[in-house]
Amino acid sequence: MPQRLSPKLPELRKDPITGRWVIIATDRARRPSDFSREPVIISEPTRFCPFCYGNEQKTPPEVLAYRVNGGSNQSGWSVRVVPNKFPALGIEGELNRQGEGLFDKMTGIGAHEVIVETPEHTLTLAQMPEKQVEDVLWAYRERMLDLKKDRRLRYILLFKNHGEAAGASLEHPHSQLIALPVVPKRVKEELEGTKHYYEFKERCVYCDIVRQESQAAVRLVMETDRFVVIEPYAARFPFETWIVPKRHESHFEETGAPDLQNLAWVLRAALRKLDKTLERPPYNFVLHTSPVQELAMPHYHWHIEIMPKLTKVAGFEWGSGFYINPTPPEESAQFLREAGLG
Amino acid sequence: MPQRLSPKLPELRKDPITGRWVIIATDRARRPSDFSREPVIISEPTRFCPFCYGNEQKTPPEVLAYRVNGGSNQSGWSVRVVPNKFPALGIEGELNRQGEGLFDKMTGIGAHEVIVETPEHTLTLAQMPEKQVEDVLWAYRERMLDLKKDRRLRYILLFKNHGEAAGASLEHPHSQLIALPVVPKRVKEELEGTKHYYEFKERCVYCDIVRQESQAAVRLVMETDRFVVIEPYAARFPFETWIVPKRHESHFEETGAPDLQNLAWVLRAALRKLDKTLERPPYNFVLHTSPVQELAMPHYHWHIEIMPKLTKVAGFEWGSGFYINPTPPEESAQFLREAGLG
Repeated sequence: MPQRLSPKLPELRKDPITGRWVIIATDRARRPSDFSREPVIISEPTRFCPFCYGNEQKTPPEVLAYRVNGGSNQSGWSVRVVPNKFPALGIEGELNRQGEGLFDKMTGIGAHEVIVETPEHTLTLAQMPEKQVEDVLWAYRERMLDLKKDRRLRYILLFKNHGEAAGASLEHPHSQLIALPVVPKRVKEELEGTKHYYEFKERCVYCDIVRQESQAAVRLVMETDRFVVIEPYAARFPFETWIVPKRHESHFEETGAPDLQNLAWVLRAALRKLDKTLERPPYNFVLHTSPVQELAMPHYHWHIEIMPKLTKVAGFEWGSGFYINPTPPEESAQFLREAGLG
Repeated sequence: MPQRLSPKLPELRKDPITGRWVIIATDRARRPSDFSREPVIISEPTRFCPFCYGNEQKTPPEVLAYRVNGGSNQSGWSVRVVPNKFPALGIEGELNRQGEGLFDKMTGIGAHEVIVETPEHTLTLAQMPEKQVEDVLWAYRERMLDLKKDRRLRYILLFKNHGEAAGASLEHPHSQLIALPVVPKRVKEELEGTKHYYEFKERCVYCDIVRQESQAAVRLVMETDRFVVIEPYAARFPFETWIVPKRHESHFEETGAPDLQNLAWVLRAALRKLDKTLERPPYNFVLHTSPVQELAMPHYHWHIEIMPKLTKVAGFEWGSGFYINPTPPEESAQFLREAGLG
């Protein structure tokens, strides 16, 4: 039974991984209908779309494609991965680490790729067949395994911006991947936090979270034999949702076929529940995984964090770097549990 | 003379304080005219405004006001500080730290106040007289000195959201203050980073930055005898602008009258330059200062960070937690240097 917080008393909650404190403002708790809506509804393209069939020559040559017919860079594919036409990083050259007085820099070596999730312009991840989502996940995995062979690349950042309000500049369903010669600060924080917990407890904090949340069921959205979907205890945003594998694994790219298959179902189901509860909100999701050149780690545990972008609530943290969440995760979990799969 | 970066080669730059890497995407460098504009222009109120003269009874009773005539909670004030009507934290009660399985929480004790910067609804910080800006800064200082007497409060977060796109829910010019019983993670990171630098160099990293930037003048926007205004080396956002005092001081609230007077001129001038270059952009600024219960620290140095919120560029980092800045700070500094004070 959801545990009701006493009214009017905001709570400060600490994220057990990073140590970040968040205000859960129970006093002005927001229900899904309190957020102003900007539903992401994709119509057939009215202008040129580089990711639709027939325009394969307008993107840089593909680095991966799943297809039943047709040759390279022709139509007939189901998932297609291409280098970003305007990459933030270049794959050629030396890292060339150097100083500039007290500052440090290096050349922006890396890869910036686009995973086109489907040839169908209007088909979102939540709406496509489960098998198609699975193919997208296989493409993520395959690109990571390929890119990690390049020893210069230390981290692969895989994420999706869905809807213009969440930063998507093209409508056609796609994810992005950035391979970096450095480990981003956000990842380092998680690695350090989980290591600290491991040293203290000799257990992985994510494994502990999975056990506690599965048992308490207060912030649990759903559960399969391989994954839990939860609203995290110290959620920064309303309806922030995590998908965590039950089995400990530090590297996403080590995930096997049964897990990927189940993940496809779980990811699609979670997105459908969010779509239903929040009327197709813009969202971001980010794959949190280990630096690719590191060996398996007992303290880190890959997972996916989904952040719906709900307008009229995001204001506060922009300025301050501090989060106030007006929807307790216990309440958002209940809404999502009660939402069917559509 | 501004140092031109070779075209097409993006740079990875490391922030010397936090260790955060940022991509400076020189290849697709954006000029001010490349950003889509949403100028913040405030008109006379068309509906009830709780911060205008005559509505003093509609806010919680003031905790500070500068006035030449009139009594408490009446008109006649020039700057007025009131508790937020919908506070994120409550000032009454015990912290009551406790666990919930592996999670930690405490009651949301603290203060949430609004600094109404002027009685004039349409007068922005950039446009008001210098003396008025100075009064606003005095109000910041005075509220911090008062709140730090409460030993439960460990950090005072002072910030401004200007314009709806930057999170402001009310138009009337105002800043906000949140006093917290914990030190936010973002602050802890800066404290740890600067401490690490200090242990290595036995110098304050901000003092070093002031010296280097003042001398190189490449990222310098302007300089007085007491402050520098710079575009930081590893800027996360286009036209991110820092105001740093030249004299080492860890706590903003220890700043004396001559510094506050000069800061008023510098802050107003920096905002006018941003207004002129970017057509009155929405922006956030945040005062970065030391935890209020700590003694003076040789390694930390208070400063103000201003982040214009330019649409159509913010997309990337939403999802990824990693920053790509399409405008090298050397270029934004040049634009701002060349912009007059309006």
